[in-house]
Amino acid sequence: MNTTAERLKLLRKYMSAQNNAALIIPSNDPHFSEYVADRWKTRAWISGFTGSAGTVVVTDNAAALWTDSRYFLQAEEQLKDSGITLKKLKVEGTESIEDWLKQQLPARSRVAIDKNLYSIAEFDLLKKTLAPLYLAPIDDFFDEIWSDRPGLPFEKAFILDKEYAGESIGSKLSRLRETLGKHSSSYIYPITLLDEIAWLYNLRGADISYNPLTLAYALVTPEYAYLFINQDKLTFEDKKELEAEGVTICSYSDLGKTVKCHNKERFCIFNPKKTAVGTFEILEEAGFDLAEDCNPNGIITSLKSIKNDTEQQGFRKAMLDDGVALVRFQRWLEQEVASGAVTELSAANQLLELRSQSESFVGNSFGSIMGYKEHGAIGHYHATSDTNAVLRQENFLLLDSGAQYLDGTTDITRTIALGPVTKQQKKDYTLVLKGNIALSVIHFPLGTCGFQLDVLARQFLWNNHINYGHGTGHGIGHFLCVHEGPQSIRVDNNNTTLEEGMVLSNEPGVYRPGEYGVRLENMQVVIKSGKTGFGEFLQFETLTLFPYDKKSIDFSLLNREELEWLNNYHNMVYERLSPFLNAEEQKWLQQKTENQLII
Amino acid sequence: MNTTAERLKLLRKYMSAQNNAALIIPSNDPHFSEYVADRWKTRAWISGFTGSAGTVVVTDNAAALWTDSRYFLQAEEQLKDSGITLKKLKVEGTESIEDWLKQQLPARSRVAIDKNLYSIAEFDLLKKTLAPLYLAPIDDFFDEIWSDRPGLPFEKAFILDKEYAGESIGSKLSRLRETLGKHSSSYIYPITLLDEIAWLYNLRGADISYNPLTLAYALVTPEYAYLFINQDKLTFEDKKELEAEGVTICSYSDLGKTVKCHNKERFCIFNPKKTAVGTFEILEEAGFDLAEDCNPNGIITSLKSIKNDTEQQGFRKAMLDDGVALVRFQRWLEQEVASGAVTELSAANQLLELRSQSESFVGNSFGSIMGYKEHGAIGHYHATSDTNAVLRQENFLLLDSGAQYLDGTTDITRTIALGPVTKQQKKDYTLVLKGNIALSVIHFPLGTCGFQLDVLARQFLWNNHINYGHGTGHGIGHFLCVHEGPQSIRVDNNNTTLEEGMVLSNEPGVYRPGEYGVRLENMQVVIKSGKTGFGEFLQFETLTLFPYDKKSIDFSLLNREELEWLNNYHNMVYERLSPFLNAEEQKWLQQKTENQLII
Repeated sequence: MNTTAERLKLLRKYMSAQNNAALIIPSNDPHFSEYVADRWKTRAWISGFTGSAGTVVVTDNAAALWTDSRYFLQAEEQLKDSGITLKKLKVEGTESIEDWLKQQLPARSRVAIDKNLYSIAEFDLLKKTLAPLYLAPIDDFFDEIWSDRPGLPFEKAFILDKEYAGESIGSKLSRLRETLGKHSSSYIYPITLLDEIAWLYNLRGADISYNPLTLAYALVTPEYAYLFINQDKLTFEDKKELEAEGVTICSYSDLGKTVKCHNKERFCIFNPKKTAVGTFEILEEAGFDLAEDCNPNGIITSLKSIKNDTEQQGFRKAMLDDGVALVRFQRWLEQEVASGAVTELSAANQLLELRSQSESFVGNSFGSIMGYKEHGAIGHYHATSDTNAVLRQENFLLLDSGAQYLDGTTDITRTIALGPVTKQQKKDYTLVLKGNIALSVIHFPLGTCGFQLDVLARQFLWNNHINYGHGTGHGIGHFLCVHEGPQSIRVDNNNTTLEEGMVLSNEPGVYRPGEYGVRLENMQVVIKSGKTGFGEFLQFETLTLFPYDKKSIDFSLLNREELEWLNNYHNMVYERLSPFLNAEEQKWLQQKTENQLII
Repeated sequence: MNTTAERLKLLRKYMSAQNNAALIIPSNDPHFSEYVADRWKTRAWISGFTGSAGTVVVTDNAAALWTDSRYFLQAEEQLKDSGITLKKLKVEGTESIEDWLKQQLPARSRVAIDKNLYSIAEFDLLKKTLAPLYLAPIDDFFDEIWSDRPGLPFEKAFILDKEYAGESIGSKLSRLRETLGKHSSSYIYPITLLDEIAWLYNLRGADISYNPLTLAYALVTPEYAYLFINQDKLTFEDKKELEAEGVTICSYSDLGKTVKCHNKERFCIFNPKKTAVGTFEILEEAGFDLAEDCNPNGIITSLKSIKNDTEQQGFRKAMLDDGVALVRFQRWLEQEVASGAVTELSAANQLLELRSQSESFVGNSFGSIMGYKEHGAIGHYHATSDTNAVLRQENFLLLDSGAQYLDGTTDITRTIALGPVTKQQKKDYTLVLKGNIALSVIHFPLGTCGFQLDVLARQFLWNNHINYGHGTGHGIGHFLCVHEGPQSIRVDNNNTTLEEGMVLSNEPGVYRPGEYGVRLENMQVVIKSGKTGFGEFLQFETLTLFPYDKKSIDFSLLNREELEWLNNYHNMVYERLSPFLNAEEQKWLQQKTENQLII
């Protein structure tokens, strides 16, 4: 019997002892994080499937895993002989989890989920769609069967200096309370999301990959601000500072106890999409009047999305470090590729090494995508020892990477020709560049949403019957998560208006399966543009500082305005980065940013 | 005592006899038409206010009219000494009808509306927001107090030949039934909207201004298709044809009776936004299981929006007639303006006269907007004898007009310089033109909605801190309403996807209050564009045939692609229109469409 089969057996034993007919195991942690700590990789432990997205469902005599097309091959491989059937999401004929369970089980059977891994909104929906099966929220059950399960992560946490954060904890608390006070003068506000807590308390940590977050809960009332955290993660000085700012520090597990101590007549303001069923139960039992947060994006997420002047300056500073590292990286790449010793993985390591030379460097902001040739056409490609390609003096390298600096988070994509460029490659590159420019130069009235601007990045591709299957822009945190809401620039409707101080990516692409991928990504911040009789207008300032690959551009496809933008951008890149480069590097960058003649 | 005061007195007498504390009088007719027949101009009759939009609310001792900014001046004038207070919509401090009524009346007072003038969706919403007042749906009450009230309109109606409609009534019925059959095999489907009935039965009439519609209801079951109409409007031959296509003709007032005759166990499929409270009551009383139409836009509205080949060819033919009339009009204008005898009204009459020379001309498709100088900056300006300006050899004339031809409906806007053009005027004109072109040339993947394309028309204006407050594109009927859903191109979200065969306007503009307005409007039809590995793509074909005003264009602001588009468009205009013009007219058009040199 293999490991997965043994584990399934254990799980089923526990399941039937508890009178559950089925268990659903998602990929979440109790804080709805994008990356989860090892302790919560329960779905991977039970199934052997290690992809980032997937849900396992287990009944007494069947088990299945639902995952998306990125992971079909990997899941097939990893589920071999496991007794778990692969269910391919968004493929014709694949039934939903609910329909599958209804086929497997008699009506009114008990289907259980871990109540801390589902938001109350997700739970309510699943309850409806699962009927006539009964959905039961239960406690975490993996401790019982996973003997060597990792404990709670326990990395040091620290208070981010105001020099970087730009606003004191006290000031953030008072802005939050001002908004909450509009609901009621007597409220309690639980906070589950780690990046919301990190922003509110200027708190950073390392409990999770890529996101500088620390495991915690928080609770805010008009008089109290609680932080529930393993206190040993914090220095004495940081604890003192938190207390001085009005924060009461309690144990990570003390949320429930503390809630009960508070006046039962208060309103509890909660966000159903961001409150776990378990937390919701605690709030209900405590007898609060539960009032849904009237900001569906979350109050803190909305406050956090608007970067203050210090944060904006920080981003600009982080871009200098990032740009310098990238200059050194591409120079190294151009020198070393000929040797035949550079691979996708070694190149990614080299880039990490160069970035880490910055004093304010903390880590990568996500797993680098170093996609050579056809690998560049694979969405979210991450090289492994199995796929690791040797880079040669031909074709495109698509490089999407970023870092966490104390000053801010970066995310940049460039596509670099390692050899001669074909006509089709040049055209693809240039169409992507034109979209990238069009979304950089637009001015737009107050009240504009990202979905209204998306077509600007796609128009030149569409006119050539090309499209890409991902969003054009995502929000980016300040030394926080590289993917952050509520703003976005996507085809689909997202009613969040773009506001001054929001930071977004701008990343159109072309993917030719089996050939190559082209993506160009800059970060840009929303700034004021002007006010006329027609209203107030905003625009973007491009933050990212790194040249485009001039050799891959078909300049005949650029119009005068686009050429001017490109020259100005390259001039800015040289001006800002060159003071931090040595003479050789300056010469290299000077060539890369040399202006194109405009006739 | 003036007329309005006398009428209000009559209304109040009736109101209190019926135990109603208030009456709300909207601008609708029972078919939710854009233009209403005189019989239903009850709001204008009671208040003296003749604008197209407004709601009057009357209590025992107060009365008020809510209208929008287009009509503030007119309403102030017309309400003078009427005892009706003007309430300015979307102006700070203006309370809603509901709040105003709650201030005027004690809780649980009865507020009444004519049950045939409110859809069940509107009624349900108003009922909620009016609580604790009670909303009572009552019968039309104006017959009792309006002694010389016009009767039901009674203009001839006729069957549009298949040569124009492109699809038989029987075929349309079977397509409708196919969709309805997906709900249930046993259903009844009431139809209230006049343009839906006109499309389904290939029926046209003249009961309403500008829209070639005839007053009717319809009802479709798997076996029967009823048309409720004053039968004397139809010729013997048309009645025979309808019957041959499976249509049972009944009196306009027979909907209720007929509904009752049908099997009570059937489902009734209804659209809550398009079914009057009165009709809903009939359906409820008949004992049907009421099922909401799962297409929120309405099944027929959706079918109707996709023009068949014959209809598309018809539009192209209508554009020839329209273009020829416009050529003759502009030539006349250029010759006559110097005389000082041309006014906004006389010019509009001249254009109507020239259009009416086409054999297939039926009438104007809306009230012409002939806006000279500052009048061009007023939204929906319609010249009256009070405002009628004399056209002189200076400044811009904004001309938005259209016609109903048997072949199709037209809607075109051009802005024409009657004299020298200032630098600002040229820039405004050219920015609008660039937007007009950008929205003409775009290709887009299947599944794209209008809101995703809107920015293409606005981008050049936005980049100059200019914006316009109206939509960019509306759907257009085929020899039907000039404003037609469900598709649109607007800033706001409308989830209707653009489909092959849909016809839309493309009409960006700049309005400088007190100075002039610039708007350029073409009609365009969605056509196939191609299929690649990236999916299927659609594009627009421009239908409208009339030159732009070259003298108003700053060619230095156009890039190569835009210049090419403009030259190609002008070549097409000349090619298609010239065969229908005399030598003098050809010479004129040749000059207007002469190509611009591309360097």
